[in-house]
Amino acid sequence: MSGSLVVVGTGPGKAELMTPATLAALAKATDLVGYGPYLARIPATRPDQRRHASDNRVELERARHALSLAAAGREVVVVSGGDPGVFAMAAAVFEAVETGDPAWRTLDIRVEPGVTAMLAAAAEVGAPLGGDFCAISLSDNLKAWATIERRLRAAAEADFVIALYNPASKARPHQLDHAFELLRAIKAGDTPVLFVRAAGTSEANMVTTTLATAEAARADMRTLVIVGSSTTRRIGRWVYTPRSGGGLS
Amino acid sequence: MSGSLVVVGTGPGKAELMTPATLAALAKATDLVGYGPYLARIPATRPDQRRHASDNRVELERARHALSLAAAGREVVVVSGGDPGVFAMAAAVFEAVETGDPAWRTLDIRVEPGVTAMLAAAAEVGAPLGGDFCAISLSDNLKAWATIERRLRAAAEADFVIALYNPASKARPHQLDHAFELLRAIKAGDTPVLFVRAAGTSEANMVTTTLATAEAARADMRTLVIVGSSTTRRIGRWVYTPRSGGGLS
Repeated sequence: MSGSLVVVGTGPGKAELMTPATLAALAKATDLVGYGPYLARIPATRPDQRRHASDNRVELERARHALSLAAAGREVVVVSGGDPGVFAMAAAVFEAVETGDPAWRTLDIRVEPGVTAMLAAAAEVGAPLGGDFCAISLSDNLKAWATIERRLRAAAEADFVIALYNPASKARPHQLDHAFELLRAIKAGDTPVLFVRAAGTSEANMVTTTLATAEAARADMRTLVIVGSSTTRRIGRWVYTPRSGGGLS
Repeated sequence: MSGSLVVVGTGPGKAELMTPATLAALAKATDLVGYGPYLARIPATRPDQRRHASDNRVELERARHALSLAAAGREVVVVSGGDPGVFAMAAAVFEAVETGDPAWRTLDIRVEPGVTAMLAAAAEVGAPLGGDFCAISLSDNLKAWATIERRLRAAAEADFVIALYNPASKARPHQLDHAFELLRAIKAGDTPVLFVRAAGTSEANMVTTTLATAEAARADMRTLVIVGSSTTRRIGRWVYTPRSGGGLS
């Protein structure tokens, strides 16, 4: 007999942005596995539910633990923030399946979508993702910085709106500065740049500035940075990208 | 006295993927404005609530109508599918504000984030958006096809995972073929290509194929197409992109 594994995202933070499907999966679970602060967001449901909190940056280890529990017959939910498929735990779970016990391939595994950070950040300021856009993680824990630079350059040259995940951490204080520098060589100085901190929570905070004056020091681990396309604009207190998204002259 | 306007997304389709924040906004509204099929998804709430259904492709007109109602003191909710900020109504509302009655700039306008189609599609098949990715609408109703081609080329050359919104419609039957042709000249033929139809609904249907054999005829208006990066892979019945997302050799 074997159990099941559901990978969920709690959304950006506020309980009202967690989907009912995710809440239902959480309520049914015998075991919750996740990074401590994400588990702390989840209201207690059943008294017999076990919580397995782990540190940040041990995604693969955490995924293997969750798969072992499911293989032992438990009903496991792996808890991410945001959407589990965007720079979060779903990919780590499938990496663990691919490299782990062959029996894990027959497990009942499911992913529940959620509201990822860039959607919550965009909603706070208007509609900056209104045209074509891309999402890039600035973390080079798992990929080469040269790859990140290549993608930033391509995104700027093709005039995408750019959402930057993981823009800064204590271990990586200079990468966002490097990214802004690279983008300034390609994009106009008056391109809107948004720093949205704690989007989708009661502490949400937004700063709208321009590429010419954007300072990396404004970002921390809870910040999502959005760099506009050539047509992204301010209108009153809002920022939006027309649906043409830079394609009309 | 003036009312308010909230732009929401119903998510991909299933009620369990609509956020409680969106449900609360819908319940409070005196007027719902949206494309008919999206309005039809919403359970009746208050008996005095008015519904203003409109056709597809009249986004700006619909946005102006909603803003007029709010300016007249109504509590208006504009209803999109998915997330309202991704190829949906939020950008149209701010376009209407920018080009419309200056009094509209002082209105109480808010956007509620939702689960956009690519997140629901990704969850159905595993974690194909596990690395850096971009979202491109193939509709050239509002932007030049040359712009779309330029973005497809840039995304392929920089090895992003690519989510294609609006891949096909009766009015535009050939664009997805053109897109595949362009991508084949840059990316490997064995790159996974996913056709996910009606993701996040009870009728969800997935086809996993490769770029070499992908046929545009598989897509219709309810399909989201995901083209993998160089590291996107199949593992059993799942498809995922490792978190390194093509950046590690």
